[in-house]
Amino acid sequence: MKKLINDPRDARREFLAGLALAHADILRVCLEPVYVVRADAPVQGKTGIVSGGGSGHEPMHAGFVGRGMLDAACPGEVFTSPTPDQIEAATLAVNGGAGVLHIVKNYTGDIMNFEMAAELCQARGVEVRAVVINDDVAVEDSLFTAGRRGVGTTVLAEKLCGAAAQRGCDLARVEEVCRKVNQNGRSMGMALTSCTVPAAGKPTFDLDPDEMEMGIGIHGEPGRERIPLLPARELTARMAATVVADLPFRSGDNVIAMVNGLGGTPLMELYLVYGELERILRGLGIRVARRLVGNYITSLEMAGCSITLLKADDEMLSLWDDPVVTAGLRWGM
Amino acid sequence: MKKLINDPRDARREFLAGLALAHADILRVCLEPVYVVRADAPVQGKTGIVSGGGSGHEPMHAGFVGRGMLDAACPGEVFTSPTPDQIEAATLAVNGGAGVLHIVKNYTGDIMNFEMAAELCQARGVEVRAVVINDDVAVEDSLFTAGRRGVGTTVLAEKLCGAAAQRGCDLARVEEVCRKVNQNGRSMGMALTSCTVPAAGKPTFDLDPDEMEMGIGIHGEPGRERIPLLPARELTARMAATVVADLPFRSGDNVIAMVNGLGGTPLMELYLVYGELERILRGLGIRVARRLVGNYITSLEMAGCSITLLKADDEMLSLWDDPVVTAGLRWGM
Repeated sequence: MKKLINDPRDARREFLAGLALAHADILRVCLEPVYVVRADAPVQGKTGIVSGGGSGHEPMHAGFVGRGMLDAACPGEVFTSPTPDQIEAATLAVNGGAGVLHIVKNYTGDIMNFEMAAELCQARGVEVRAVVINDDVAVEDSLFTAGRRGVGTTVLAEKLCGAAAQRGCDLARVEEVCRKVNQNGRSMGMALTSCTVPAAGKPTFDLDPDEMEMGIGIHGEPGRERIPLLPARELTARMAATVVADLPFRSGDNVIAMVNGLGGTPLMELYLVYGELERILRGLGIRVARRLVGNYITSLEMAGCSITLLKADDEMLSLWDDPVVTAGLRWGM
Repeated sequence: MKKLINDPRDARREFLAGLALAHADILRVCLEPVYVVRADAPVQGKTGIVSGGGSGHEPMHAGFVGRGMLDAACPGEVFTSPTPDQIEAATLAVNGGAGVLHIVKNYTGDIMNFEMAAELCQARGVEVRAVVINDDVAVEDSLFTAGRRGVGTTVLAEKLCGAAAQRGCDLARVEEVCRKVNQNGRSMGMALTSCTVPAAGKPTFDLDPDEMEMGIGIHGEPGRERIPLLPARELTARMAATVVADLPFRSGDNVIAMVNGLGGTPLMELYLVYGELERILRGLGIRVARRLVGNYITSLEMAGCSITLLKADDEMLSLWDDPVVTAGLRWGM
């Protein structure tokens, strides 16, 4: 296993130690239990936002903690749900008296542990609401998931809800923004290679040199099909068609589009795919009003990409443009 | 070859088409000859800054075009020097009457072509100065290079010179900043895997599953030695010791530190290495005053990292903090 780590058992803790040293102006890291929190938490009177999930998807979620995005993130071990005590501690740490929204990706372990944590917090008098993101159009009822998996739309939800909370929106309103984003966001991914979980020491799955997997999950869960390698134009067209048909996105829609790398794909390729995607959408009369191209929700060193489209109204576009200062996403300040 | 491209011969052009669509607010792409230029170029009265080199190192350089950094970038084919006509056209396009600085990485082809372009521009009445970056402490006289290669310090030089030019510094002053940065910056890289140039279709070199290459070049040029895999702590210590001893960096120094991913290494690992590096530097009495952790000067999908240290005075730290708005680096606006 070729990784820049020491003991795999220490990888999460040591990653977070480096994150804390690098971004002391933005965030703090607590280790007992493990969570990452805004340097200025709790912000009195502000709706708190907490997300979390397995590590290995960076910058999501720890890299999205900061002004205008998340108040806290709960990183589990690599590809492993965070535990209820992590989520409870993070929620209490960011509670500024206005309640806390949990943004949860739809994986059975995550759902269960966020629910347990929410109950524990509510028993302590903290109001908690939760929104489950389930935007992956590839498959229904995957490994680890009942229903659709939560993937790229999570990044957009965290940005938009973070902006709403920073503006002073109350918990009900921030929850409403999150539901709207989830309802209007759709994603699909594809992989060229597998990745290796440090504790496992070997690739999660095998792909032949001439095949790729369409509809891959962010933990390497099986997708829709394994097919021979396709040129970028054709694979982007296939993914875009599936995503567009699902909502469906229609001529005249404004979208926020994300072309996301899974970790091991050069930026050159991601921009090339973005070019293909925007041309396809223009042909359908769909306007890309805002976009992200890069590594935002990754699967360690997996090669491949995902496409996320969010049908965006004026409020969403305005929230998108609000300042954000995190390790992984930053503009406007 | 597993890549998100169409025909390898079109990869550069199609990457740039996507870049232009994604960042029309920041930059424009010209295709005959190929260069990337600030959307508002030329800025009258401002010292222009042009860099360039082979594609495949993104976000460097095209991703660093924008307010507070480069005025233009000249992307060659993958790992191939840009041609003089590209550099000439870019230089003329950004000339606002105050002259243009060329920031050139020390590779023989780059040097030759930037020199030819500078002569062509000077013949047309545009004042051009050039600074060659040669910060790689790993090896002397590598493949493609006489002397030391130019690597990570280039990113820092582009940021700091870009800030100086944006403040209104004249060509001589911006050139002076660039020389100071090059004199005080040192880098070293290591690779866990090779990468595949699209036009070649096979890995540039081979590394056994249990070995890594210390001192690798950004095009896969041989480093100092191939050694068995080391834990992150030990390999960071080795690289840091080599870099620190070279300038040398001393107790009491302030540095800007970069832990840079070569393209295929997860952010988790880069932050882990950053944590190791900062602890080592603290132990030596060297203060990390600013830092970058992420993929900034890459080698396609190569797994590995590089470390860059720049001994920074107050002027450099102040220039560092100035706003920058590019596809690959953004803060303060």
